[in-house]
Amino acid sequence: MEIFEKRSIIRFSGSTSENKGDFVVNETPLTIMLNKQELATIVCSPYAQKELVVGFLAGEGLIKKYSDITDYFHREKQEVVWVETEDSDTAMENFMGRNFGSCCGKSRPTLYFRNDSEQLRPLYGNARFSASELQELIRQLDDGSDTFRMTGGVHSAALADNERILIKYEDIGRHNALDRVLGHTIINGIATEDKAVLLSGRISSEMLIKAARIGTPVIVSRSAPTGLAIDLAEELNITTVGFVRGNSMNVYSHPERIVR
Amino acid sequence: MEIFEKRSIIRFSGSTSENKGDFVVNETPLTIMLNKQELATIVCSPYAQKELVVGFLAGEGLIKKYSDITDYFHREKQEVVWVETEDSDTAMENFMGRNFGSCCGKSRPTLYFRNDSEQLRPLYGNARFSASELQELIRQLDDGSDTFRMTGGVHSAALADNERILIKYEDIGRHNALDRVLGHTIINGIATEDKAVLLSGRISSEMLIKAARIGTPVIVSRSAPTGLAIDLAEELNITTVGFVRGNSMNVYSHPERIVR
Repeated sequence: MEIFEKRSIIRFSGSTSENKGDFVVNETPLTIMLNKQELATIVCSPYAQKELVVGFLAGEGLIKKYSDITDYFHREKQEVVWVETEDSDTAMENFMGRNFGSCCGKSRPTLYFRNDSEQLRPLYGNARFSASELQELIRQLDDGSDTFRMTGGVHSAALADNERILIKYEDIGRHNALDRVLGHTIINGIATEDKAVLLSGRISSEMLIKAARIGTPVIVSRSAPTGLAIDLAEELNITTVGFVRGNSMNVYSHPERIVR
Repeated sequence: MEIFEKRSIIRFSGSTSENKGDFVVNETPLTIMLNKQELATIVCSPYAQKELVVGFLAGEGLIKKYSDITDYFHREKQEVVWVETEDSDTAMENFMGRNFGSCCGKSRPTLYFRNDSEQLRPLYGNARFSASELQELIRQLDDGSDTFRMTGGVHSAALADNERILIKYEDIGRHNALDRVLGHTIINGIATEDKAVLLSGRISSEMLIKAARIGTPVIVSRSAPTGLAIDLAEELNITTVGFVRGNSMNVYSHPERIVR
C-alpha cells in the first residue's frame, strides 16, 4: 500500500461539477502483539512501521533501549507486528491498567500515567538555538512535505540540529509521526540532547511527553502549545516554542536556550 | 479550569523580543472508571465532560442508549468519572482485548475493531444537501470558533440540518469534539438521520466510524479524508465531502445525497 493514491472524486466549483482524479492519503490499522498479548491497534500511514512500533513501545515506557527487543516480526499481509521483549512486567501492568494513582498529588501532578511519572526526568541538554535558526528549520519542515501538498492530509515531525533537519517522518496522525522519530533515534542510537524536535501540529501534553522521551530539550511548532504541555515543559526543563511563522515566534517555557 | 487562560510568553519578532501575555488552550486528563474497572484516561478540554464520556462509551460500542447508564458520578477534583452500566460484558471484552480477529477477511474488511464490525450497519437516512448549503454551514463552523481564534489550539465538530448548526463542540482533540456531539445526541435523543456532521479537521477512519455511530449519513470537512475513511464510507453508505472552501468542495463517496 502506498502512502497516498489516486481516487475518483466529484469536484464542485461554483455552479459546476466534474468527475476527476485526486490524491488521498492512505491509512491502515496496525496491531501490536507484545509478548504474545494484544497491546494496541494503531491506525497509521502505511510506511516505516518498525520505527513506529519501536517508538510507540518506548513512548509508553514499555522499552528503554533497542536491545530490550529480543524478537520482531511483521506479518505484513495481516498488518500485525509480533514483538518479544525482556520482561518488563511492571511497565506492562502500568500500561494495561493505565494506572495514574501514584502521580496525582505527588511530585509530578501533571504526569498522569505512572510509566511517565516513574521514568521521566528533567532534561539538562545543552542545546542552544537562535530565533532565526528555528524559523529556518520550520521553513524546511514545511517545504519538504510533498505528501502534505498533494493530499492535505498528513502531519510532520522531525529531529534537527542547528543547521538542518536530520530525520523527518509524516503520518495521518501527529502522534505516529513523532513516535517514528523516537523509534528512529532508538534504533540508530542517535544523540538527542543537543537537538530540537519540530512539529507541524500542536504541542499537546502527549506530544510534550514523547519529546521528553526522545531527550531533546527543545520542542518547536508552527502551531500552539496547550497549558498542560507548558506546565510539563516547565517541570521537565524543556524549551517550548510555538507559532513559528515567518520571522516571528512565541517562547512559552525555558527561554534560556534561545540565544542571539 | 477554563477552556483557555492567559500565560506569560516571550514574543520574538524580527530582531526584537518582548514579554507579553497570550491566551493558550487548557487540557486536562479525565479518567473513566466503567463498572469499577479503569477503562481509559482521555486528555481533553475541561468542559462538557458528561457529553464527552457518554460519547466515548457509545463510540467504543460500550453503550447503545443513554438509559444503558445506571449511575454517573464525576469526581471533579480528581478528574475521575465513575460510570455504572447494564451489563455489556461482550462489548467490554472486545474493547479491552481490542479483538480484531473476526473482522479481517470477512464481510467488513475495513472495520478493524470487533465492536464496530458487529454493531455498525449501512445508513439509509434521507438527508439531502446542496453544495451551497454545505459551504454556508462550514462558514458558520469557522465563524463561530472564538476559542480557536484566541488560541489557535482547538478543533470543532458540529451537527447541522440544511440551514444551521444545531450542536457544536470544540476540543484540543478532534476525536473528543466529535465524541461530545455523539454524547449530546444520545443524552438528548436527537434524530440524526436527516442531518450532517461537520468537522474542522480531517476525516480519518476513526472519525468516519464515530459519524456512523451518530447516524448522520453525511460527513463534511474543510480538510481531507483518508483512503480508508472513503472505503468505510462506501460500505456504510455515507456521503463524504472534503476541502469545503469558499464556493468549492470535493465529494468522495455517495454523491447521490448532494442535490442542486
